[in-house]
Amino acid sequence: MAQNKKMVEAITGRDEDFAKWYTDIVKKAELVDYSNVKGCMVIRPYGFAIWENMRNDMDRRFKETGHENVYMPMFIPESLLEKEKDHVEGFAPECAWVTVGGSEKLTERLCVRPTSETLFCEHYAKIVNTYRDLPKLYNQWCSVVRWEKTTRPFLRTSEFLWQEGHTLHETEEEAREETLRMLQVYTDFYKETLAIPAVVGEKTPKERFAGALETYTIEPMMHNGVALQGGTSHYFGDGFAKAFDITYTGRDNKLHYPHQTSWGTSTRMIGALIMVHSDDDGLVLPPKIAPIQVAVIPIAQHKEGVLDKANAVYEQLKKQFRTKLDDSDQSPGWKFAQYEMKGVPVRLELGPKDIEKNQCVLVRRDTREKLFVSLDNIEQTISDLLVKIHDDMYNRALENMKEKTHVAHNINEFLDIAKNKPGFIKAMWCGDSACEDKIKDVTGGVKSRCIPFEEENLGDTCACCGRPAKHMVYWGKQY
Amino acid sequence: MAQNKKMVEAITGRDEDFAKWYTDIVKKAELVDYSNVKGCMVIRPYGFAIWENMRNDMDRRFKETGHENVYMPMFIPESLLEKEKDHVEGFAPECAWVTVGGSEKLTERLCVRPTSETLFCEHYAKIVNTYRDLPKLYNQWCSVVRWEKTTRPFLRTSEFLWQEGHTLHETEEEAREETLRMLQVYTDFYKETLAIPAVVGEKTPKERFAGALETYTIEPMMHNGVALQGGTSHYFGDGFAKAFDITYTGRDNKLHYPHQTSWGTSTRMIGALIMVHSDDDGLVLPPKIAPIQVAVIPIAQHKEGVLDKANAVYEQLKKQFRTKLDDSDQSPGWKFAQYEMKGVPVRLELGPKDIEKNQCVLVRRDTREKLFVSLDNIEQTISDLLVKIHDDMYNRALENMKEKTHVAHNINEFLDIAKNKPGFIKAMWCGDSACEDKIKDVTGGVKSRCIPFEEENLGDTCACCGRPAKHMVYWGKQY
Repeated sequence: MAQNKKMVEAITGRDEDFAKWYTDIVKKAELVDYSNVKGCMVIRPYGFAIWENMRNDMDRRFKETGHENVYMPMFIPESLLEKEKDHVEGFAPECAWVTVGGSEKLTERLCVRPTSETLFCEHYAKIVNTYRDLPKLYNQWCSVVRWEKTTRPFLRTSEFLWQEGHTLHETEEEAREETLRMLQVYTDFYKETLAIPAVVGEKTPKERFAGALETYTIEPMMHNGVALQGGTSHYFGDGFAKAFDITYTGRDNKLHYPHQTSWGTSTRMIGALIMVHSDDDGLVLPPKIAPIQVAVIPIAQHKEGVLDKANAVYEQLKKQFRTKLDDSDQSPGWKFAQYEMKGVPVRLELGPKDIEKNQCVLVRRDTREKLFVSLDNIEQTISDLLVKIHDDMYNRALENMKEKTHVAHNINEFLDIAKNKPGFIKAMWCGDSACEDKIKDVTGGVKSRCIPFEEENLGDTCACCGRPAKHMVYWGKQY
Repeated sequence: MAQNKKMVEAITGRDEDFAKWYTDIVKKAELVDYSNVKGCMVIRPYGFAIWENMRNDMDRRFKETGHENVYMPMFIPESLLEKEKDHVEGFAPECAWVTVGGSEKLTERLCVRPTSETLFCEHYAKIVNTYRDLPKLYNQWCSVVRWEKTTRPFLRTSEFLWQEGHTLHETEEEAREETLRMLQVYTDFYKETLAIPAVVGEKTPKERFAGALETYTIEPMMHNGVALQGGTSHYFGDGFAKAFDITYTGRDNKLHYPHQTSWGTSTRMIGALIMVHSDDDGLVLPPKIAPIQVAVIPIAQHKEGVLDKANAVYEQLKKQFRTKLDDSDQSPGWKFAQYEMKGVPVRLELGPKDIEKNQCVLVRRDTREKLFVSLDNIEQTISDLLVKIHDDMYNRALENMKEKTHVAHNINEFLDIAKNKPGFIKAMWCGDSACEDKIKDVTGGVKSRCIPFEEENLGDTCACCGRPAKHMVYWGKQY
């Protein structure tokens, strides 16, 4: 009972304290629990079910584009991590090191993988011989560890779940195509499955992944205007291949280095999901990944025929939708609050009067709209409604992103926007990382998000230094 | 080309050198690659596809029996591992320890999970309050680490993939039912999906899991008569609950300790799959988990109409079966050897003469039987054939297990069988672990496998010491 009461307690308002609102949702929707291990989280059944739905959807997209899953060891010997100079510099400071195994001190320290480029390279060096062995299109789903000082569930944790794709190609052109193809897969997934719009483009050199020649990114905007790096895709050229001596005999019968990519997304996406769509009553989940799509709530369930009818409707719906019938002895009001907290897209209420009229009440989670609909053809009605909910959620998020995107022509406008208007800032840039440093310093943390594929011409000079501009860049604070 | 030649090289004969035959298959069927990390393996796409099929099948069975997936941290603080005395004694000697995180020495060592009882208990202590919160039926799919001195792919590795179920119940009775229910789920999975028969029953106290009151096991026999512990299910009573202070308010409004179980299976099952079914030409996979169920091989594919027809058959079959069309420029002979090595259950050959007659040739991997069948109704023909292959594989394995199961009435018969007849030994036992020790010593490694649920009466006295017998026990050497 104490448990139940806790569920319907109000959570912190989103506009009142965004950070606290986020934490409240994460806990009260029972997505995670904190563990005694610093920075590591317990992903609870409801949170994990969301992750499973995401993973299954992405995995299908990866397989449709020809990728295969593998599993690499979770440990990387220190000497292996050190083979690619830029890479080790990027990751060594945040590694967890195993130094003792089976009660003996190890002769070489093992890093718990923060990412697996080095392991894939070592394997590729052994199995790739000729151009006939290419491309290699591998992906793995696993957990990785990056020692973080300050942590927040899903957004920044010392251990997180992710997928990492690692591919090897005969030509630079093919590898570049793959890098962009996977960025597009991510973009489609965000739009079609998570109902999240985003800005996509290339990272500036300063923001590139350790060891990459090019890093592409998808940057959705959270409801409060803060950006979240939602997924990245990297083109490595042949730098790793050279460091790990991966060669193949080409069609010309000569030895060549193959060209490489990697791309990854993680449980951070659950954080994005919360911060883009949810509201003061809890989670709002897009139908495609909601663990429960329809919650059937009988009203006055003690009255004759109500439970029977509710059961019949449930049996009918569960063939097509992830459906839950709640016939527990909690009050309807408690149940409404419960499934609102959990972000169930559609609530179906069914009482004696509805049954008389052969109808039911559908309540949308995202808008609270109440619809009185016939029980005839209810599957089609709900199916259409779920599509509409998805589209409306996407469009509202897009509207929010547009509203919170501003243009700065000079450093004063930059400062003014950074101070007063949360969101993205579009501004011209000279290409010098010194300007990125300066902007970050004076604004208290605004960083370049990406150079979008379609740049607008907002002027001829860098908004920071006034020198000739090379690119239009999206800027913003980030999680 | 070098690659191709390697594929059709003969592997070591199964009867010649079983261990080398096993390693040859693992490598030549491209299931794993060795890594530079001691005892850790790279699971390659074909090996991982087998694991995915196993995992999806088991996961469905777990969900159908009401279980939910979660994810616990991969690290266990030393103090947490030490909370349950028997448990830490069992696992501490084989732990890998993280002592440095983010370039700082940790104040407390973290063990990379060898199993997660302690983490589940810590979480349960926080989220369970009343009998209304029970049962908790959680499972997780993850990798675990146990530092091994001598390793073999799938059978014994320092890191392996597994599932671990951890459940919490109001009553002892419910927890005992769960322990046996999950053993049955494993037994069904082995029979229905892996086509592997097994002996099931209870482990002797000596062979129990660290901290368990009862351990149940499924013990399939490999082709050479050696046993493999194929999965275990443990009843813990309330020992962990007491150690971790997990309590709930009961229906009587008083505080109680809940009763607990855990159960697990791992990538070892792939080792079992190989050693039960495969032969001198490579893998033989049961249809339910084969990554490719049907390989379509065009014969004389340069002749007009052959590739078109092969493609049409492929398009037709792939809707219902995991099908691969191999129209590469390799010879049919090479392709035959390739898909035999990979254990594809059915090969479909299609040449100009077959097309004329509206037929094709189906070749069973398990028996090499050739069937000339009409292309009309080919889906049904293949569907029936796959069922028959599964059943025949199961029955052959059962026959092998029966043939290699012997009865010993006294220590001399025990020694004779252990020396001359590989397989299981059924023998009466007094219940004293001293006799287990003695049998292991004198036979060079024969251990008790389990006390089966249906014990036969083979006599009144212990086959080792001659004292009154309490149980009939299955004995055998193990991987």
